[in-house]
Amino acid sequence: MSKKRPLILVTNDDGINAPGIRTLIEVMNTLGDVCVVAPDSPQSGMGHAITINDALYCNSIKVINGEPHKEYSCSGTPVDCVKIAVNEILKRKPDLCVSGINHGSNSSINVIYSGTMSAAVEAGTLGVPSIGFSLLDYSMEADFKPSKKFVKSITEQVLKNGLPKGVVLNVNIPKLDASEIKGIKVCRQANAHWEEKFDKRTNPLGRDYYWLTGEFVNEDKGEDTDEWALHNGFVSVVPVQFDLTAHHAMKELNTWDL
Amino acid sequence: MSKKRPLILVTNDDGINAPGIRTLIEVMNTLGDVCVVAPDSPQSGMGHAITINDALYCNSIKVINGEPHKEYSCSGTPVDCVKIAVNEILKRKPDLCVSGINHGSNSSINVIYSGTMSAAVEAGTLGVPSIGFSLLDYSMEADFKPSKKFVKSITEQVLKNGLPKGVVLNVNIPKLDASEIKGIKVCRQANAHWEEKFDKRTNPLGRDYYWLTGEFVNEDKGEDTDEWALHNGFVSVVPVQFDLTAHHAMKELNTWDL
Repeated sequence: MSKKRPLILVTNDDGINAPGIRTLIEVMNTLGDVCVVAPDSPQSGMGHAITINDALYCNSIKVINGEPHKEYSCSGTPVDCVKIAVNEILKRKPDLCVSGINHGSNSSINVIYSGTMSAAVEAGTLGVPSIGFSLLDYSMEADFKPSKKFVKSITEQVLKNGLPKGVVLNVNIPKLDASEIKGIKVCRQANAHWEEKFDKRTNPLGRDYYWLTGEFVNEDKGEDTDEWALHNGFVSVVPVQFDLTAHHAMKELNTWDL
Repeated sequence: MSKKRPLILVTNDDGINAPGIRTLIEVMNTLGDVCVVAPDSPQSGMGHAITINDALYCNSIKVINGEPHKEYSCSGTPVDCVKIAVNEILKRKPDLCVSGINHGSNSSINVIYSGTMSAAVEAGTLGVPSIGFSLLDYSMEADFKPSKKFVKSITEQVLKNGLPKGVVLNVNIPKLDASEIKGIKVCRQANAHWEEKFDKRTNPLGRDYYWLTGEFVNEDKGEDTDEWALHNGFVSVVPVQFDLTAHHAMKELNTWDL
């Protein structure tokens, strides 16, 4: 153990028992003192939701496999987990927050729906350097082993260099063997969107209901995007900001007759 | 009725019966053909959450006060409402989406937690010009009358000029009489965050639980921010983008040993 181990907060949106977070904990245990505060149930697609009209439960979990970290399971959203970790559970501000490894892509526009990335963004608003990790494999049987070396090397770089103020990282990893992954690319978010189809059904009481089923549409042909990198065998790293101001649009709006 | 009235989608996050959305519907009925698709219950703080593991119900509501618009109440989040409206309910893509009027501020960092603004952003990703409106008054008894002329004039400008691609508007209105409001200012998002305190209690079964209680902290002294404008009697208009890429950070990340 080095003299000064960083304090690392780990969370996710697939829930505290998901294989992805177990892999992340394993890697982080080699890099610092780890505290896990994660949702007690799956929270995919929760975006930046917070719990304001309900009480939150947060339970200390006994880690039985001898690993050195601490674990807490929380009844709230991923963003709630970060808030309660930083403000209530941890004795000092963490040096790093990592979220994931998500089961499924958070590239491109998916960043705005993602509980994984929203947790990372929330930590960023609190001044904590932060990374969201996702593997492009939705399966609960996904193989996270090839992800480990990339998770470790990117995390080491953030611990070493820090991150620019107001910036967190969105890391996506292609579903490939480690030997097939060509490297890591810093990218911009591809300009894409979801086209939804609603599967309309009728319940036994005669009432119509809908299932949301979407198709991801990427019209962005740029070779500097996360989508391009992932389709070409690279790990994508997108710096993400939470100042949403479209500064480039201000001049035009100022010409309006407001 | 003019020859070609715009088709306007109206939604919110306080629920279809909130006074804020009733005011918004009233104003929009003077500007176009209105379809309301809004949550059947309050959805504040839901951010960009979507419903993926549950079915959605969406019911046509009979408008009984003789107004010309159509109304649907939906069991999902504000983002679900926009998705189901654009992809399932409306016969053609709307010319505009307006969300609100929210009961309470969505200025500064609040934009990322806001269901109101997430609905507007979702419409933006679908290529629909879009505006979120909020009044700085959380009360259900809030007086929305002074907001009307600003909502109308900003909406008219968007219908006339359109919006830059990838940009939606975040409009906040101070809690003042119309005569006290000094005008409308195009602003950037103030750099602020929430410092949370968790109110810890014990339930009758002896189990601890927490209420989230936060304090908004604005360290941004700029006079070009939404917070400054609102504190100085102006309506704030922030152009908001959903390309979250921190382009300014890419050069630095590319110097890393990845």
